[in-house]
Amino acid sequence: MEYQFSERVQNLKPSVIREILKYSSDPTVIPLSAGNPAPDAFPYDAISSLSAELLQNAPIEALQYSVTEGYLPLRQHLLRYMKEKYGAGTETDDILITSGAQQVMDLLTKTLLNEGDTVLCEAPSFIGSLNTFRSYRARLVGIPMEADGIDVQQLEQALNTEKNVKYLYTIPNFQNPSGITMSLAKRKKVYELCRDHNVIVLEDNPYGELRFEGEPLPPIKSFDQEGVVMYAGTFSKVIAPGMRVGYAIGPKPLFQKMVVCKQGEDVHSNIWAQIVCHRFMTQYDYEAHLKSLQEIYRRKSKNLLDAMEQHLKPLITWNKFEGGLFAWCTLPKEIDMMEFVNKALERHVCVVPGTAFLTDENEPCSSFRINYSTPTDKQVTEGIRILGEIAREMMP
Amino acid sequence: MEYQFSERVQNLKPSVIREILKYSSDPTVIPLSAGNPAPDAFPYDAISSLSAELLQNAPIEALQYSVTEGYLPLRQHLLRYMKEKYGAGTETDDILITSGAQQVMDLLTKTLLNEGDTVLCEAPSFIGSLNTFRSYRARLVGIPMEADGIDVQQLEQALNTEKNVKYLYTIPNFQNPSGITMSLAKRKKVYELCRDHNVIVLEDNPYGELRFEGEPLPPIKSFDQEGVVMYAGTFSKVIAPGMRVGYAIGPKPLFQKMVVCKQGEDVHSNIWAQIVCHRFMTQYDYEAHLKSLQEIYRRKSKNLLDAMEQHLKPLITWNKFEGGLFAWCTLPKEIDMMEFVNKALERHVCVVPGTAFLTDENEPCSSFRINYSTPTDKQVTEGIRILGEIAREMMP
Repeated sequence: MEYQFSERVQNLKPSVIREILKYSSDPTVIPLSAGNPAPDAFPYDAISSLSAELLQNAPIEALQYSVTEGYLPLRQHLLRYMKEKYGAGTETDDILITSGAQQVMDLLTKTLLNEGDTVLCEAPSFIGSLNTFRSYRARLVGIPMEADGIDVQQLEQALNTEKNVKYLYTIPNFQNPSGITMSLAKRKKVYELCRDHNVIVLEDNPYGELRFEGEPLPPIKSFDQEGVVMYAGTFSKVIAPGMRVGYAIGPKPLFQKMVVCKQGEDVHSNIWAQIVCHRFMTQYDYEAHLKSLQEIYRRKSKNLLDAMEQHLKPLITWNKFEGGLFAWCTLPKEIDMMEFVNKALERHVCVVPGTAFLTDENEPCSSFRINYSTPTDKQVTEGIRILGEIAREMMP
Repeated sequence: MEYQFSERVQNLKPSVIREILKYSSDPTVIPLSAGNPAPDAFPYDAISSLSAELLQNAPIEALQYSVTEGYLPLRQHLLRYMKEKYGAGTETDDILITSGAQQVMDLLTKTLLNEGDTVLCEAPSFIGSLNTFRSYRARLVGIPMEADGIDVQQLEQALNTEKNVKYLYTIPNFQNPSGITMSLAKRKKVYELCRDHNVIVLEDNPYGELRFEGEPLPPIKSFDQEGVVMYAGTFSKVIAPGMRVGYAIGPKPLFQKMVVCKQGEDVHSNIWAQIVCHRFMTQYDYEAHLKSLQEIYRRKSKNLLDAMEQHLKPLITWNKFEGGLFAWCTLPKEIDMMEFVNKALERHVCVVPGTAFLTDENEPCSSFRINYSTPTDKQVTEGIRILGEIAREMMP
């Protein structure tokens, strides 16, 4: 047999991160490359007891086919939760439960994008989402990041000049990979600019509730009275990613098509996990749980920051981050980033080269991404010590 | 905001079945329209105890991010199982765990089809898959069914004349909706024809292990030495559909792209469910479990057949079925099928109009589909009695 692939997949490659992650299964490697939530953050006991109870009391509900839209009590609860806590969502919005937030990116893209249409995104941005957009042959246009979020002047320029722009993809809180949080003023400005250009905002907020410093900022969705924002949420970082439960809150007209697309992809998301998430949110003290997560990440991030202060300064700098799972580090111009990353791998420390997060991987980049939630504190300290050593060795 | 949809979704509609299923949530309606496995077929106790043990002993494995390809022990076990039991799979095949078999249809289509390319399918065929193909703007060409499976002469003609045919979609066992099983001779012929025309066979086998009569036939995949067949399997009918665990076994070169597409859709399938399926297959007597399922369906189908003999004969005829979940019934030419289905709905009996399963819903069709696994035996008997009454009333 000769296999002829569709045009859309001919240039698709596995995510660099997924490939690099293969190294991290080697137990001698320090995995600063991952993006996993801290395993000690999973509410094991609660999941275990909710699950046992569910399979005992409502096994048919947990195991039979279900509706594509998702488990109704979870949908209703999330709408209330987002409205009451964040002022996000209106009467003209609806909610769809997805198989992780990744599926929100997929379904919205499938629903809106013709091949060759433009997606605006932050540069750098989350490679997983970029690859989803690429799989529909989107034209990706990166807008540079500043310390307080996307460069709104360049965004405005792109909105004025780029053709067939279907949406802006943004991660306003503790962005992956840069760690940057978008300021309140920019959130409002981004909303207004996109609304005025009839461009949807795809607001991806996986880390928003993992804030360990500073004051929470309202989601862009909270300004939305005109059906501009599709909000992507997930339980991956606040309950457990292996369950694959995410959700989209956005304008009703978009959901009619997204639901049909989801029917064709996986019929519905694992219903056991949907019910467990709902019961966890409603039968446990969810706010206390979030506080305990924030405490874990505060402690782990402090350990990272201490190590960076001690071993990386002054050669390697990093962006301030008030939450999330990542630190974005930048090398001095004398050091070649890819060479640095490869030297680190030789010494069994795995980080992700910054180029992986660009719309064009061949653009120059002197940054790399560190994850501090997956490895142990000891591994983080040791990994950072080695990275500092390599940087000093590489200086001319 | 004005929403502009992609061309691919502009004509997408929700599946007729999903819409009709909304009626079946009305407790006064007899749901002969569903496609759910019998709830008494779920191995509740095993799932419950395996799940409890798993969340106790290996909670990180069950809850953390996992690899896109699927849980390795499950992949290895399924490859062995399919090889040993059915002689299916070679050294050049690989396996991917999916979020239900529906995702196999989606990923293969995404990987192979350009817009406007042709998919050959049986006529009638499973609407869920047809809608997946449609969502990639496939051109669907239906090949008529005969009592022993697809009409191979018409298949050969289509292979010779249709352009850009990427694959043939077939359900060889107890086809949904026709109930027909493809003969051994036709399985071989279908394989050879497709191989000789360099066209992939997408073999969907959700019901194969629910045979309650006659002798099992080898899957088309078992003839495949040349990388022609992509086999779609699922646990939806043999363990539980709410878990959303399916799998694809097929030629390695196709998987490289399918895995990247799956990364972009949902990263990986719910890992708790994958591990539970693996442990169920390996720690319990899986063959005894399958026998007990066959016994349930044998009993339930006998109840249906008794009712049909009593109430439908001679006006309404049906295809012989040796397994699976469906009976395909045909009305005499004097009765308009859509009118019959609507009259049944008025009397709170829900069946699926046959047109839903055609590549062109506007073609004439005098058949409808009955499911006997979801309703109770009493509901089935009563529903069939009402259907027979309506048919007699409608005769001129």
